[in-house]
Amino acid sequence: MSNKKLWGGRFSAAIDKAVESFTASVHFDQRLALYDIQGSIAHASMLGNCGIISNAEADEIIAGLKQIQKDIESDNFSWQRELEDVHMNIEARLTEMIGDTGKKLHTGRSRNDQIATDMRLYVRDVVDQLSQRVKDLQIVLVDLAEQHFDTIMPGFTHLQAAQPVTFGHHMLAWEQMLERDRQRLTDSRTRLNISPLGAAALAGTSYPINRQQTAELLAFDRPSENSQDSVSDRDFVLEFCSNAAILGTHISRMAEEMVIWSSDKFKFVDLGDAFCTGSSIMPQKKNPDVAELLRGKSARLLGNQTQLLVLMKGQPLTYNRDNQEDKEPLFDSADTALACVDILVRMLAQITVNTEQMYQAASDGFATATDLADYLVKKQIPFRDAHEIVGKVVAYCVQNNQQLGQLNIETLNQFSNLIEDDVYDCLTLEGSVSSRNHIGGTAPEQVKQAAIRARRRLQA
Amino acid sequence: MSNKKLWGGRFSAAIDKAVESFTASVHFDQRLALYDIQGSIAHASMLGNCGIISNAEADEIIAGLKQIQKDIESDNFSWQRELEDVHMNIEARLTEMIGDTGKKLHTGRSRNDQIATDMRLYVRDVVDQLSQRVKDLQIVLVDLAEQHFDTIMPGFTHLQAAQPVTFGHHMLAWEQMLERDRQRLTDSRTRLNISPLGAAALAGTSYPINRQQTAELLAFDRPSENSQDSVSDRDFVLEFCSNAAILGTHISRMAEEMVIWSSDKFKFVDLGDAFCTGSSIMPQKKNPDVAELLRGKSARLLGNQTQLLVLMKGQPLTYNRDNQEDKEPLFDSADTALACVDILVRMLAQITVNTEQMYQAASDGFATATDLADYLVKKQIPFRDAHEIVGKVVAYCVQNNQQLGQLNIETLNQFSNLIEDDVYDCLTLEGSVSSRNHIGGTAPEQVKQAAIRARRRLQA
Amino acid sequence: MSNKKLWGGRFSAAIDKAVESFTASVHFDQRLALYDIQGSIAHASMLGNCGIISNAEADEIIAGLKQIQKDIESDNFSWQRELEDVHMNIEARLTEMIGDTGKKLHTGRSRNDQIATDMRLYVRDVVDQLSQRVKDLQIVLVDLAEQHFDTIMPGFTHLQAAQPVTFGHHMLAWEQMLERDRQRLTDSRTRLNISPLGAAALAGTSYPINRQQTAELLAFDRPSENSQDSVSDRDFVLEFCSNAAILGTHISRMAEEMVIWSSDKFKFVDLGDAFCTGSSIMPQKKNPDVAELLRGKSARLLGNQTQLLVLMKGQPLTYNRDNQEDKEPLFDSADTALACVDILVRMLAQITVNTEQMYQAASDGFATATDLADYLVKKQIPFRDAHEIVGKVVAYCVQNNQQLGQLNIETLNQFSNLIEDDVYDCLTLEGSVSSRNHIGGTAPEQVKQAAIRARRRLQA
Amino acid sequence: MSNKKLWGGRFSAAIDKAVESFTASVHFDQRLALYDIQGSIAHASMLGNCGIISNAEADEIIAGLKQIQKDIESDNFSWQRELEDVHMNIEARLTEMIGDTGKKLHTGRSRNDQIATDMRLYVRDVVDQLSQRVKDLQIVLVDLAEQHFDTIMPGFTHLQAAQPVTFGHHMLAWEQMLERDRQRLTDSRTRLNISPLGAAALAGTSYPINRQQTAELLAFDRPSENSQDSVSDRDFVLEFCSNAAILGTHISRMAEEMVIWSSDKFKFVDLGDAFCTGSSIMPQKKNPDVAELLRGKSARLLGNQTQLLVLMKGQPLTYNRDNQEDKEPLFDSADTALACVDILVRMLAQITVNTEQMYQAASDGFATATDLADYLVKKQIPFRDAHEIVGKVVAYCVQNNQQLGQLNIETLNQFSNLIEDDVYDCLTLEGSVSSRNHIGGTAPEQVKQAAIRARRRLQA
Repeated sequence: MSNKKLWGGRFSAAIDKAVESFTASVHFDQRLALYDIQGSIAHASMLGNCGIISNAEADEIIAGLKQIQKDIESDNFSWQRELEDVHMNIEARLTEMIGDTGKKLHTGRSRNDQIATDMRLYVRDVVDQLSQRVKDLQIVLVDLAEQHFDTIMPGFTHLQAAQPVTFGHHMLAWEQMLERDRQRLTDSRTRLNISPLGAAALAGTSYPINRQQTAELLAFDRPSENSQDSVSDRDFVLEFCSNAAILGTHISRMAEEMVIWSSDKFKFVDLGDAFCTGSSIMPQKKNPDVAELLRGKSARLLGNQTQLLVLMKGQPLTYNRDNQEDKEPLFDSADTALACVDILVRMLAQITVNTEQMYQAASDGFATATDLADYLVKKQIPFRDAHEIVGKVVAYCVQNNQQLGQLNIETLNQFSNLIEDDVYDCLTLEGSVSSRNHIGGTAPEQVKQAAIRARRRLQA
Repeated sequence: MSNKKLWGGRFSAAIDKAVESFTASVHFDQRLALYDIQGSIAHASMLGNCGIISNAEADEIIAGLKQIQKDIESDNFSWQRELEDVHMNIEARLTEMIGDTGKKLHTGRSRNDQIATDMRLYVRDVVDQLSQRVKDLQIVLVDLAEQHFDTIMPGFTHLQAAQPVTFGHHMLAWEQMLERDRQRLTDSRTRLNISPLGAAALAGTSYPINRQQTAELLAFDRPSENSQDSVSDRDFVLEFCSNAAILGTHISRMAEEMVIWSSDKFKFVDLGDAFCTGSSIMPQKKNPDVAELLRGKSARLLGNQTQLLVLMKGQPLTYNRDNQEDKEPLFDSADTALACVDILVRMLAQITVNTEQMYQAASDGFATATDLADYLVKKQIPFRDAHEIVGKVVAYCVQNNQQLGQLNIETLNQFSNLIEDDVYDCLTLEGSVSSRNHIGGTAPEQVKQAAIRARRRLQA
Repeated sequence: MSNKKLWGGRFSAAIDKAVESFTASVHFDQRLALYDIQGSIAHASMLGNCGIISNAEADEIIAGLKQIQKDIESDNFSWQRELEDVHMNIEARLTEMIGDTGKKLHTGRSRNDQIATDMRLYVRDVVDQLSQRVKDLQIVLVDLAEQHFDTIMPGFTHLQAAQPVTFGHHMLAWEQMLERDRQRLTDSRTRLNISPLGAAALAGTSYPINRQQTAELLAFDRPSENSQDSVSDRDFVLEFCSNAAILGTHISRMAEEMVIWSSDKFKFVDLGDAFCTGSSIMPQKKNPDVAELLRGKSARLLGNQTQLLVLMKGQPLTYNRDNQEDKEPLFDSADTALACVDILVRMLAQITVNTEQMYQAASDGFATATDLADYLVKKQIPFRDAHEIVGKVVAYCVQNNQQLGQLNIETLNQFSNLIEDDVYDCLTLEGSVSSRNHIGGTAPEQVKQAAIRARRRLQA
Repeated sequence: MSNKKLWGGRFSAAIDKAVESFTASVHFDQRLALYDIQGSIAHASMLGNCGIISNAEADEIIAGLKQIQKDIESDNFSWQRELEDVHMNIEARLTEMIGDTGKKLHTGRSRNDQIATDMRLYVRDVVDQLSQRVKDLQIVLVDLAEQHFDTIMPGFTHLQAAQPVTFGHHMLAWEQMLERDRQRLTDSRTRLNISPLGAAALAGTSYPINRQQTAELLAFDRPSENSQDSVSDRDFVLEFCSNAAILGTHISRMAEEMVIWSSDKFKFVDLGDAFCTGSSIMPQKKNPDVAELLRGKSARLLGNQTQLLVLMKGQPLTYNRDNQEDKEPLFDSADTALACVDILVRMLAQITVNTEQMYQAASDGFATATDLADYLVKKQIPFRDAHEIVGKVVAYCVQNNQQLGQLNIETLNQFSNLIEDDVYDCLTLEGSVSSRNHIGGTAPEQVKQAAIRARRRLQA
């Protein structure tokens, strides 16, 4: 057994079976196989170009790697746990196929720079995919915003109806959250897209390699600046997982709202049968399971980020085996983030908005109380005094079970004799939303404009 | 498709394929299959005994379940993702096998109390296994403590040699950490071992069930007190994962010490070839990979605990689908904790202690400086003044590159004329450790006694 | 400056001012002052009894310490940052007061065992206080349960009305959560109440101390078993903060429910003006701020626990200065947990339950659909088939905007001709809850019994 | 009392004293006072310019606010807990000073957009300060790198000597870590520097405000796009704290290395008396306390980030009182990050590098084993075979207690007869480091160039 290990020279005892299982990573790092091959092809090509191996050898290695790639893609590759990891599985197979030349592939590199390269290629792909999906989701939201630019609903603070807003405005609030997520992903890409290849074990290599060339072949922006940093750095993983965790808070907040909005008592939206499930015992149930899972899965994004920060925090430079543990949380955050955004795209595209329920809910509260206060301020009452007066009007309504708009002028005048008949204009929901007519405000006209700006931004 | 769902009555649209994949849990919750069957057998048996179904029906169901159990154990069971979860897979198969009687199994219960039951059975098993493994590890440490009750090494504070201790004493410090872990597991078992079965969806059931009977059949201590709590509570998961996270800090601290102790500069221990791996590029390397992985894997235990607390924190009562996300971190913490303790048992059983290196390291520092201060105190110098004097002696040694024991009486008398020839007794390592001769102290005699007490405790 | 430090003997340079500020802890660890004095009195008393110092010296030290205690209690003690920590501030003052004898107090101990002692005394006090407050809260819940043992409300799963329950039953679900919290605190006390005093720096001491005596004087159960473990162990902090974090999930879940229940759309409860606040701009608002803060503060309990696990995970044995960072999160978790439970006691004691709103909400859904299915099962229809039939009845009701109880027999017979006039009994809310008449079920009679059992348990 | 509250109109009962204490924030949010005044001045100025209040009123308000600012700066402001928060304290004082005009300040805004504005101004300041300090630290590292561009030390993987590197190279690895931190801060600033003012409670306001103007007055890049998002968004806090947490992992890793490097067994560096502290019991101790505290304090950065993600994750839009809890972890992360970087600047500027100890340590291991393998590869042995051969040479050395450079040619030829006399060149430390002569490599010439590039980048 031990002679299968590619580092066995100085070891006398074979590795314990339990240890082999404890230390194996091939069952999860095989996900990096195609990136590993991509990196190896670039490396072999450079070795050939620089005369470190012959061009014929380089060609032979590359052909072998391409065959292995095909085998993996067609699921004809036999992964072996005793070969530890994805790198060793591929290299051993290469040597099996093409003989001793295969053993030359590892010249001038180490598994330390190799895995760093693989992971950067992987994260780059994930960042690109996730950015695209987030954009897809933003587009769905802009569509909803345009459709519902003047659909009135209660805006909430403290889960209490606060002021009327439009559903389109609310959708654009969500869109803004996602826009920041997308920007963060974009920003992270510049720090991520740097080639560690050539850092070798930690110090660089004595072979006359050309790091610029491998960087270019792999579409990296440039080679990294410092070999020790290159093999110990996992900031690109931390940054991705931080961004995914913040995205997770957004997903969770949206999901929380959908759960509340689709509850019996709110009925603001209908999530559609295809996105709900039933109960094994209660025949009437239609549960917003998908929204709840979205909320639950965001805990994963947070937990993974915590795990990774803890993992990195404790290590001196440069590479330590602790780092094998960076892959599973990374993969899980990537899969989770991609799946959650995908399912949101599907679910929101099919959401039914119950405009009547929303309108009614906005009418039931005292959502235009602020408008009444503002009315009084325009009659020269200082805002704080106006606020106090309206507070008393509302207390009166609660006691007498009335709406603001139902009070007659005589009653209103008991609280302030400045109130006149024109007050009823500002107490309507339509009047209230229309009056918030500045950039960022909920006035339908503003929402329409904001949607147009958002669409333009997303198309850029 | 939709008609395969066991809750499809009120639904008109079939579920979206992407949703099916997003919400499926059978790929991980099938790990609970045998617990699920165990619970179902107890439930069916009780239904029969209470006359809710006939005894013949109960027998038929139980026979069917036992057959399914055999199929699962021999890997002859075909899991279907479209059947969502472990419960539905088993129940659908049961009905396929025995016909309509199978449909009666779910009488008087819900997936909500069913999954709570399955998980408690699972965690109980894990707690029992982990307790046993922790005990095995404690025994290895007690063995080492007895072997090395008088092997002198430097005791560290701030990673600086502080005072001489014995290696046996250090091993018993580890043993104490684990003893608390084991106690916590034991304590958690009493809160865990309670039967939620019969809570049904959340309110209990209108069938004349006997919850005491199912509790007894499943070896639970008693049925739970409140049906709503029973289906929403996951404290037993949180408590297990908290305990695993604290255990993880212990594993990490031990691992950290082994990494340091096996470094080139310390060489206090040799971890053995079977527990180390090499480098793909540096032929001389023998890396303490297993210890580093132990350190890394403890981050997982911490991350899982964080994820679960976050998951539970956000939910109103009772059951919400978020809870589907409780299984993977739980399984991962269980697997990780079990594997880490197992590998520690193996690794420590084969550790080589380099007693000379340890002794030399204890001699090199100024580990007996405290003893010199104590010597002065016994000559009536207040401790704080004695400390000041010895501080100056040490500063002198550092400047002149000497050990404390190498100073002659004349030199020592420059700092205090109370120092006499008997001082050299207290400056030896042996004298120092022997003098700490009280319960909990590092004197070899105390270590020997402590090991005996520990062994007795572990055998109880 | 440097000569004020009690460890300055070997140092030549004075400490940097920025470093002094960076490393100072007295601004937060002075909270431990009275515990520190308590520990010092026990230590001095033991030193006197064992003849390590004279009885006269011991008395002098103890008198000095008691004077310092008075000064601190009356806020007449001048804390000095350059004296680093609480220990040095008190000891320096003692020596100032009683002269050289004060310098003898530190004989046979170290700041390492001293701080461990102080912290255990502190946590013990907090555990006792918190246990009592949790019990107070449980009693408030039992009171509510007795008052509302038959107040019908909808029980929720997935925030959808699932089945009718009673408000009393829901309160007892909360009580069960807290009961586990209290048990965990009690269990932790046995691991906590152990005396580390005498472990000294890490190895014990060469003075003939009596650790059993100091343990008794401080009401600890026994001295600790291992000196190295004693100074490096912070499990008692981790365990307290884990327990507080789990308690935090309960507080958050209760708070989440109160926010939802007090929303405009639910109006199940009224939290009372004294526990709500208004808006600076919206005069109508009455926000459940206290409930929201409870939800928010539980995030603190979780964050502190994470911080502490991370802190401990990275350290080799024994004491490292990292541990100075254990105090602030511990204090914060203690303060937060105590304050949250206290405010819950006050808030719940004054909650107004809107029984009509609750009853209406239970009527509005299809909360008795399960009862209809059970009715059919009792007519010999297998449960799964009954579930399917009722699912179709509910779908019919949704389409036709009707309640289950409003359908006439002819309509019901379209779905199953086994349905007869007696079906209307099981479709009432009262009939539904009464039928769940087994231990843990929501039947009013069961709730009443459960409340009696809970009260008895709390009085024990 | 209740009439002091600025939202008391609809409330009948005074607030409970315990509630007042539980909900108060002024004891921590007063840190935002100067930002709050800055925001209020901009708001008042805009209100005047837009004719919403008269210019005279605006001037009066602004003059009042400036006086309050002076009072706060000179510590002559009396904060009152019953006024809840920083906003109310300042506004109440303003009205006290200038009468009813003061009540007009709050026209067209809410505490919701006000606090969002204050916090963005605060975080912007912190980001700018922290960026500058990180840059200062990078400069110290570049200085060290230039000084020690050819100081040889062992480079570590797995805490085992791997290959020789230079100390300058290692310092530049740290510099790269910090460069990414600084970039992340810069990137975050563009998302942060956006004005929420004018979003009012959540929907915007009906007053004809000019949001562009307040944005300009406060040096924000632009007004925010969506009012609901503006009051509920705390991404800028999450992003800052994420960045601080990643910075924390870097600080911790550096600190970990300094603890190890300054240990008795390594003695690579001397941290200087001013940055170490002693022991109260062990007179010889010189502990790297500052480094350990740096390691410990990074746990805080991680814990705060976790707390904030948890806090935000659970909230529906828009503002909820949970958010009051966002300030303390933010302030703590800001203070901690600033203090840690500051202390690192001071400590590293005074570090003593023990070049001889480092050189000796590099010689003691088998750090040039890779060079021997590369030597063989250049003699046409495939890398994998060369690795195997050298592994056996090292095993021989370990058994015979010899260094690689001490083996004679005859012995070496037992392992490969291709080895000739020129092998000794590549076995020297100097030869090894010089040979890694490509971008990012440890060759002294490369380190010198990298330091020049870094300095140029930092000066840009």
